[in-house]
Amino acid sequence: MQALMMDTPLRIIDLLRHAATNYPQQQIISRRQEGDIHSTTYAATWKRSAQLARALQDLGVRQGDCIASLAWNTYRHVELYYGVSGYGAVLHTVNPRLFSEQIEYIIQHADDSYVFVDLDFVGMLEHIAPQLPHVKGYIVLTDRQHMPETSLPDVHCYEDLIAGYSDTYAWPEFDENQAALLCYTSGTTGNPKGVLYSHRAMVLHAQATVSESLLGLRSHSVLMPMVAMYHAGAWGAPYAAPLAGCKLVLPGSGMQGDAVWELIREHKVDIGLGVPTVWLTLHNYLQNKGITDVPLQRVCVGGAASPMGLVRAYHEYYNVYWQPIWGMTETGPLATSTPPTADIMALPLEQRFELQTTAGRAAFGVEMDIFDAENQPLPHDGESSGELRVRGPWICSQYFKHEDLSSFPDGWLATGDIAVINPQGYMRVVDRKKDVIKSGGEWISSLEIEDLASQHPMVNESCVIGVKHPKWDERPLLLIITNPGYEADKQSLYDFLKGKIAKWWTPDDIIFVDQLPHTGTGKLLKNKLRDQYINYLIEQGKTT
Amino acid sequence: MQALMMDTPLRIIDLLRHAATNYPQQQIISRRQEGDIHSTTYAATWKRSAQLARALQDLGVRQGDCIASLAWNTYRHVELYYGVSGYGAVLHTVNPRLFSEQIEYIIQHADDSYVFVDLDFVGMLEHIAPQLPHVKGYIVLTDRQHMPETSLPDVHCYEDLIAGYSDTYAWPEFDENQAALLCYTSGTTGNPKGVLYSHRAMVLHAQATVSESLLGLRSHSVLMPMVAMYHAGAWGAPYAAPLAGCKLVLPGSGMQGDAVWELIREHKVDIGLGVPTVWLTLHNYLQNKGITDVPLQRVCVGGAASPMGLVRAYHEYYNVYWQPIWGMTETGPLATSTPPTADIMALPLEQRFELQTTAGRAAFGVEMDIFDAENQPLPHDGESSGELRVRGPWICSQYFKHEDLSSFPDGWLATGDIAVINPQGYMRVVDRKKDVIKSGGEWISSLEIEDLASQHPMVNESCVIGVKHPKWDERPLLLIITNPGYEADKQSLYDFLKGKIAKWWTPDDIIFVDQLPHTGTGKLLKNKLRDQYINYLIEQGKTT
Ligand SMILES: Nc1ncnc2c1ncn2[C@@H]1O[C@H](COP(=O)(O)O)[C@@H](O)[C@H]1O
Repeated sequence: MQALMMDTPLRIIDLLRHAATNYPQQQIISRRQEGDIHSTTYAATWKRSAQLARALQDLGVRQGDCIASLAWNTYRHVELYYGVSGYGAVLHTVNPRLFSEQIEYIIQHADDSYVFVDLDFVGMLEHIAPQLPHVKGYIVLTDRQHMPETSLPDVHCYEDLIAGYSDTYAWPEFDENQAALLCYTSGTTGNPKGVLYSHRAMVLHAQATVSESLLGLRSHSVLMPMVAMYHAGAWGAPYAAPLAGCKLVLPGSGMQGDAVWELIREHKVDIGLGVPTVWLTLHNYLQNKGITDVPLQRVCVGGAASPMGLVRAYHEYYNVYWQPIWGMTETGPLATSTPPTADIMALPLEQRFELQTTAGRAAFGVEMDIFDAENQPLPHDGESSGELRVRGPWICSQYFKHEDLSSFPDGWLATGDIAVINPQGYMRVVDRKKDVIKSGGEWISSLEIEDLASQHPMVNESCVIGVKHPKWDERPLLLIITNPGYEADKQSLYDFLKGKIAKWWTPDDIIFVDQLPHTGTGKLLKNKLRDQYINYLIEQGKTT
Repeated sequence: MQALMMDTPLRIIDLLRHAATNYPQQQIISRRQEGDIHSTTYAATWKRSAQLARALQDLGVRQGDCIASLAWNTYRHVELYYGVSGYGAVLHTVNPRLFSEQIEYIIQHADDSYVFVDLDFVGMLEHIAPQLPHVKGYIVLTDRQHMPETSLPDVHCYEDLIAGYSDTYAWPEFDENQAALLCYTSGTTGNPKGVLYSHRAMVLHAQATVSESLLGLRSHSVLMPMVAMYHAGAWGAPYAAPLAGCKLVLPGSGMQGDAVWELIREHKVDIGLGVPTVWLTLHNYLQNKGITDVPLQRVCVGGAASPMGLVRAYHEYYNVYWQPIWGMTETGPLATSTPPTADIMALPLEQRFELQTTAGRAAFGVEMDIFDAENQPLPHDGESSGELRVRGPWICSQYFKHEDLSSFPDGWLATGDIAVINPQGYMRVVDRKKDVIKSGGEWISSLEIEDLASQHPMVNESCVIGVKHPKWDERPLLLIITNPGYEADKQSLYDFLKGKIAKWWTPDDIIFVDQLPHTGTGKLLKNKLRDQYINYLIEQGKTT
């Protein structure tokens, strides 16, 4: 029997309407490419999004068209999030850190009709533009005064484009399952694959995000996404912040210590979002400056496992709660977390730190389970590890224009992560399927060794990879960047690991390096390191 | 273009699954009709709901069947909320305070196949049962030991019924727009009308309810709904509490001062839900006992306007925030509120109290507007008053088995409330359309006069009605219950009102009474008073 409730769709534009009505003066702060720090409000963003929608109409954009952005985190990018999707078109947030062939590929693959571009990326686009005949025009995200000389064809200045229009717009109503946002995964192999989010998915994800299970946003929160708006929608921050009515601080391209710290300090940022490297970088910066008094209350950290060393450091130096999050582009992206609930804060510190290095529990809406190689569900006993699969209304069911459904067995998303789940529902990623080290037929978790190593005071960053071994097939190799002021001391590290991991998990060698390679989204680029070190043990004669 | 997200439905049962997985040991406390205070957990409720679903299956219940409950707020009623709706049937929560002819009417109208009944209501049902041949059986919500002698046909004992079954169940998946819950409005005229809620509506309503805009529930909250689970789903508390993972305290039938205070004190209730009379009763009780130190932090108050006197009293005596809510059975029911956000708590006290007597701002998902008699939208200027209309995914689109759509103009719900909306989005109900006093062609708001009168220290409760006047058509009459220890002093009250309202709004007489009649859901029964006093001014010769 059908219920008798109104059939009103969930729409992204209503998130901003909510903020513009209830929190009109709440701020959006942006570090701009023009050089200054800019401040606007939800009320103004609502109006400018309407102007943008009218401009799209005059450009001949139709519902369902894909519109690309190549842009940092700024208020103009927020306007694109609402103006384009609210209009009924699809915002395709292009990751400018991809190789230019990949950028060319995805703009073609998405068949983008217009490209909105930040000053930084105009030069790069000029090289690709000749291969993009289907693009009808380029809009540079700046004002007349800062408009560059450019060879881009059909080029507009953003501020001029929207300036003339009325700031009200009759936002259309359509099916909530209509596409709103398109993000390609920054896969390390093969062509990037597109995840096509719906209005429904993004609104439900935003509701979950503001809840205590995930980010726990309130109207007095000050949220700074240090994850890019071109990567998995900045984890949904541009949607969740207006829903919560909180202040949004956007770092633009300034991800270095000084620039970040200035925004945190000046705008009293209390919640930061980002991958572990971002927080490692900030930690190094603050240590260097001798700063311990920070307005931050929480850093919400996903995209990679949370190392115990950093969890502890953020608590001990800054009294900041390190909140782990698990998710991927295919999952909204936020799916699980360990928020600082009263229960968790009441635990003895060491027990709490333990939970802060898991990936946390599933938010309402996300079902998760682990499966063995035979497709059988495994017990949630904290011991059994298997491939993590997830299900829910903001999880990808198929890649954009891809027939291959091999990542979606039985209507679940197979994540490629190997995980355990404990009886309390806490999930821990043991490894990426492709990073796990197969030694003598058994698995060694690179993440667990990294986590342990991170706790030695000498260690600034660590990375474990599997390299060739004639007898055991693969053996772990540990790469270390030391903290300033520490000597590289192999023996001390081996002593530290001893007894904390099984003997046969002990890395066959430890190498001290100055740098570790990361992906554009801040993850360790392990396949690059594997290529480099693959024969290391053999060449060094360390295989006996 | 359709997005590529999973098509997983929003289901009520997943709210309880979430609690059972993430907060398994969180408590549900109930005052039982058996006489004791009972404690259970979400984990146990999850299991017993599964047993109930299996029992329904064996009783031959099919998806879409209506199942009635006549029950107080207890854990067994919570099991019905999940077991029945999760199974795919519709829980029809019957208001036992309706006249028995109305109860008979709605059980027939809904075509309920089974009736679950608390001990208290068995006697009443015995009288109606002969008129309910379509009911296949009656289940008394108790255990073997407390099972009464009864003439009810096909009677079962609840605990015996579910006892034998396995405590796991493969909850079915179905369209999220399927009906889950049926509540009839306790209209003061005509037959009650049914509102048929969907799974989607109740899940979205629960998400909004836990957000800061409405109840702001966290996992450490202790929520006590003093509004009945047979009235608009106890404002969704049985759904929102598991979603938030918070403790739920259910007062059973014990709504008197002692019983309520015992639960609040023993279980450290910090958030209460109820109509103003409930909080007036508690206030009188606490005053009487000389208690001011209470664990409550907030009382969330809807169903009638929030009188300034009580807002202030709760602040001054108990340091409790009085949080006004607006809603009706047709709206989920929660739609608007003024929660204690950081912004609001930073206001000067008098300004804050002002906002606490409005109905607040709309939660995300609810659109609201005011319209004049010609169907034209009115400005949100805080001055223009018109009929309030609302729209959204948890708002009724039609009454159950009613063709008449006159309450649903242009896809909106016409609420029957006269309201103003100010530029900041705060809504204030000026009156019920039917309670507004028409004096000489102009409107007088009974609610505003009541609100003012409530602020005089002499006044415990006040009520304004319009009664016949030969010249002005209608004139206001003010009825007062005084506070203990105060003399009934008309002149003092007239002096108090003077200058605070327009002269022509001044009530033509003030009458001191010992009692005021209320509906079963705690609202002033104004039509009864109007009948009684309709010729009062004429009879008393007060019409010159
Ligand atoms: N909390 C976490 N712990 C471990 N790995 C994580 C965590 N969060 C994200 N990841 C990894 O990041 C991947 C998603 O990458 P992306 O789609 O680029 O955001 C996941 O499949 C995981 O391998």
